[in-house]
Amino acid sequence: MGESMNDLEALDARHVVHPWADLSVLGKQQPLVVSRAHGVEIVDSHGRSYLDAIGGMWCVTVGYGRQEIIDAVRDQAARMPYFTPFGDVANEPAVRLAGLLAGLAPGDLNRVHFTTGGSTAVESAVRTAQFYWASVGRPDKFHVLSRVDAYHGSTYLAASLSGKAADRTRFHYESGWVHHLDSPGHDPDTSDVPADRRLDELLDGMTAAIDEIGPENIACFVAEPILASGGVLIPPPGYHAATRELCRRHDILYVSDETVTGFGRLGHFFASEPHFGIVPDLLVTAKGLTSGYQPLGAVLIADPIAETLAETADPAKPVFSNGFTYSGHPVACAAAIANIEVMRREDICGHVRDVGPYFVERLRALRSSPIVYAVRGDHLMACVECQVPGETGPTPRNMALAGRVDAYCERAGLLVRPYENLCIMSPPLVVTRAEIDRMVDIVAGALAAAQADLDAGRIG
Amino acid sequence: MGESMNDLEALDARHVVHPWADLSVLGKQQPLVVSRAHGVEIVDSHGRSYLDAIGGMWCVTVGYGRQEIIDAVRDQAARMPYFTPFGDVANEPAVRLAGLLAGLAPGDLNRVHFTTGGSTAVESAVRTAQFYWASVGRPDKFHVLSRVDAYHGSTYLAASLSGKAADRTRFHYESGWVHHLDSPGHDPDTSDVPADRRLDELLDGMTAAIDEIGPENIACFVAEPILASGGVLIPPPGYHAATRELCRRHDILYVSDETVTGFGRLGHFFASEPHFGIVPDLLVTAKGLTSGYQPLGAVLIADPIAETLAETADPAKPVFSNGFTYSGHPVACAAAIANIEVMRREDICGHVRDVGPYFVERLRALRSSPIVYAVRGDHLMACVECQVPGETGPTPRNMALAGRVDAYCERAGLLVRPYENLCIMSPPLVVTRAEIDRMVDIVAGALAAAQADLDAGRIG
Ligand SMILES: Cc1ncc(COP(=O)(O)O)c(C=O)c1O
Ligand SMILES: Cc1ncc(COP(=O)(O)O)c(C=O)c1O
Repeated sequence: MGESMNDLEALDARHVVHPWADLSVLGKQQPLVVSRAHGVEIVDSHGRSYLDAIGGMWCVTVGYGRQEIIDAVRDQAARMPYFTPFGDVANEPAVRLAGLLAGLAPGDLNRVHFTTGGSTAVESAVRTAQFYWASVGRPDKFHVLSRVDAYHGSTYLAASLSGKAADRTRFHYESGWVHHLDSPGHDPDTSDVPADRRLDELLDGMTAAIDEIGPENIACFVAEPILASGGVLIPPPGYHAATRELCRRHDILYVSDETVTGFGRLGHFFASEPHFGIVPDLLVTAKGLTSGYQPLGAVLIADPIAETLAETADPAKPVFSNGFTYSGHPVACAAAIANIEVMRREDICGHVRDVGPYFVERLRALRSSPIVYAVRGDHLMACVECQVPGETGPTPRNMALAGRVDAYCERAGLLVRPYENLCIMSPPLVVTRAEIDRMVDIVAGALAAAQADLDAGRIG
Repeated sequence: MGESMNDLEALDARHVVHPWADLSVLGKQQPLVVSRAHGVEIVDSHGRSYLDAIGGMWCVTVGYGRQEIIDAVRDQAARMPYFTPFGDVANEPAVRLAGLLAGLAPGDLNRVHFTTGGSTAVESAVRTAQFYWASVGRPDKFHVLSRVDAYHGSTYLAASLSGKAADRTRFHYESGWVHHLDSPGHDPDTSDVPADRRLDELLDGMTAAIDEIGPENIACFVAEPILASGGVLIPPPGYHAATRELCRRHDILYVSDETVTGFGRLGHFFASEPHFGIVPDLLVTAKGLTSGYQPLGAVLIADPIAETLAETADPAKPVFSNGFTYSGHPVACAAAIANIEVMRREDICGHVRDVGPYFVERLRALRSSPIVYAVRGDHLMACVECQVPGETGPTPRNMALAGRVDAYCERAGLLVRPYENLCIMSPPLVVTRAEIDRMVDIVAGALAAAQADLDAGRIG
C-alpha cells in the first residue's frame, strides 16, 4: 500500500485513541510506528532498529519471526479459522491446547476455560469464584480481595481490582465489594523494615481485612506472584505460602494471575508451584501463552471446583453463562501450541533459569548511579527506579528524569517501558548474554546522560 | 498429530469448560469437534459436512477459506506479529484499519479505540462515556441504561448490561447503576398491540426510567439496533430515532452495539444510519469486523467526544487508562483490512440487500407449521420460534421441541443455533439463493419431523 510514513503518522493522530493514550496530545500525537520485527529486534517505519527490552509488552517470549508459529497460524486460518466454541462445540486446536495446559499446570488445575486475553481471563476467574460460592448455597460470598499496586487489566472489574494510584483516573470503579490490601512489595535494599517483620505486617493486614469484611462474604483473593506493571514488586519470602494458607483457612479461593509470570519469564511454564511453592485454585494465563502472536487468555480451574460446579448444576438453568465469541479462537490456540513446542524443544525455561540471574546481576550494578533509587528483578522481569537524589517515588521530577532515561535509551536503539519513574524491562526469553550486555550498557549510558542533564539543570 | 477422534473428544470432556457449558454434563460432554471449513460449509472430525446457517456465530461473513485473509494473517504474523499499542506506539495495520473504519462509519464517528472482541468493546464504550462525564465535571453521571433481552457480552459489566433472563445464572451482577428498560421487540404477527402504541409505551417507559434515575446520573444508553441473541427482536418503526432524540434531550450518550448488525448483516457496513436513521455517539463493532478469522473489536468515538477528552485532560493524570495488551493486534487488524477489501470488491453489502429479503420471505413461509409460533428476521439475521401449539415462550416443552428441530437439522447437515425455544440463523453473507433454499428446506423438514414426534407423544 502506498502511504508514506507521514500519512501513517497523520492517520494515527487523526483516527486512533490508543490504549493508555495521553489525552493531552490526542490528535497531535507523534506515534512511533512499528513496522517489522525479527529475533529480539523491531524496526520502525523510518527503518530505525531497536533492541526490544520489553518483549512486546511482557509477552513476546520466543522472539519475532518464528516460522513455526507463523506456519501454524497460516495453516489453521486456512483449515478452519473459526466456529463457535459455545456449549458442546469444540475445535481441534483448543482441545489439544487444553490438554497441554493441564499437563503444564501445577496440582489439579486440569480444567481450562479460554478467553481472549488477560483482562477477560481475570474477569472469568473472579466470576467463576462467585458462581462457585453461589452454587454451594453461599451467594453472599462475592467480595474480592486484591492489593494496592496490582494490575489485572482494564475492563470495569479488572480495572477495579487494579490498585495502582496512577491508573485510577476518571473512570468509574467498583468500591463496594472490591477491597485492596496493602502493596506487598518488599525491597531489602531500600526498606528500613526487615523482611520477616514486613511479612508479619502484611499477614496481619490481610487477616484484619478478612475479619472486617467477613470471610463469609469473600469469594476470592486475586494476586500476581510478582506485581509486574506495579513496578516489579516482589513480596517478602514466605508471603505466597502464608497468604495461600490464610485463604484456605477462610474458604477464600486463591486466584493466581500469572499473565506475566507464566510462560517462562521466571524460568517455568507456571511459576506458582516451582518458584513460589503454592498451588492456586484458579490460575490466569495470557500474554506469553502465544508469545504475543495471537490474542488469547485462559483460566485454569482446579478439579474439585469444576466437579462441584457439575454436581451442583441448577437443573432449571445448568448453563455456565460465561464466555466470549473468540474464547479459544482456533488460530490463537494453534499459535499457542506451536509456541509451547518451540519452548519445549529449545528448553526456553532452562535458558531463562540460566541467563535470568545474569540479567538481574548486571542490572543491579546500575545501583551505583546516583539517579537510581532501586533495581528490582527476578529472572527476566526487572525494573530500574529513577530518582532525583533525595526525592523518592513518582514525583513529577522523578518521572521527567525517568522519561529522559527512556528517551536516551530509544535514541541509542533500545526500547524500555516507561512507566512513571520506572524503566521496566522484560526482554524476549531467547535473549543472549551478549544481548543482555548490550541492553544494560545502553541503559547505563542513558543513566549517565540523564544524570548530566540533571546536573546541568536541564530537567524539571 | 496422531490423536484419534475419540482422543479429542475425551480430551475435551476431561479438560475443557466451554463457554456457555452445560454444567450438568461437564466431564461427560460429547462435543461436536469442528475440523475443517470451506465456503459456507464446515466439516466435523468424523468427516461429516454441514451447511453453516449461523456464520460461525454471527461473524463469518465472507465465508471460510478466503485466501486473501489467510495470506494477510500469515504475512503480518511474519512481518510483525505484535508490539505494544500503548501510549504513543502504533502498528501499521491498526493505523490503516482505523482510517478505513472512520471512512465507513456514519457521521463524525472518526476516532477508533481497538479492543479484542465485543465484550471488551462494550466495556470500553461504557467506560469512555463515564470518563467523558467525569471530564466535564459530572462524575455522578455514571449510571447506564440497557434493556431486557439485550446481549452485550460476558465480562462482569457486559453481562450486567445483558438482560435476557435465561442468561442470568449464579454469577454476580451489577444492579446499583445498571438499569434495564423493557424489551423493545415488537412482532406485528403475534402482538395484540399495534406498533405505534407499542412505540408510545416504550418511550413512556424510557422517559419514566430517566426521570426516576435522574438524567444527571445517567452516562449512556446501550442498544443493539436489533436484539440478536435475545431472539432477533425488532423494535417498532420510529423507535431508534425517538430513543436517540430522548438521549440527546437528556444529555445521555447513545452507544449503538453493532457487534451483530454491523459488517453487512443488514446490508450495510454499519446499519445505524442507512437502516435505522441514527448516528450514535459511540459505536461498538466486533464479530464480522474480521469475518471471524481473528479476535478483534473496536469502539468508534464521535469527534466532539474525543475533542472534549483532549481539551479537558487532567494535567496531573492525562492518561486514558483503558486498553488491552491485544487491543488492535496487528495480525487481527490485517485480517480486518483484507476482509474489508473482499467485502468492497465483491459488494457483499449489495449482495445482502439482494438475497436478504428472499431469505426472510422463504423463512416466513414456515409460519404455516403449527409448531412455529413466529418467524422474525431482517436480511441475514432471522429466527424461528417454536412452540407446542398453545404454549408460548421458553417453557421446558417448547425448548425440548426446538432442540428436536435443531437435532433434525444437524442430522440433515445444517447447523442452526439452538437457544431456548429459538432456532437462530445468521448465515455467511455470501450465501446464494440456492443455498438459502437448501437451508430453508432442511428447516422445513426438521419442523415436520419434530411435529410428528410431538403428535406421537415423543416430546416432553
Ligand atoms: C498481571 C496482569 N494481569 C492482567 C493483565 C491484563 O491483560 P490484557 O491486557 O491482555 O487484558 C495484565 C496486562 O498487562 C497483567 O500484567
Ligand atoms: C450484540 C452483542 N454485543 C456484544 C457481544 C459480545 O461479544 P464477544 O462475545 O466478542 O465478547 C455479542 C456476542 O454475541 C453480541 O451479540
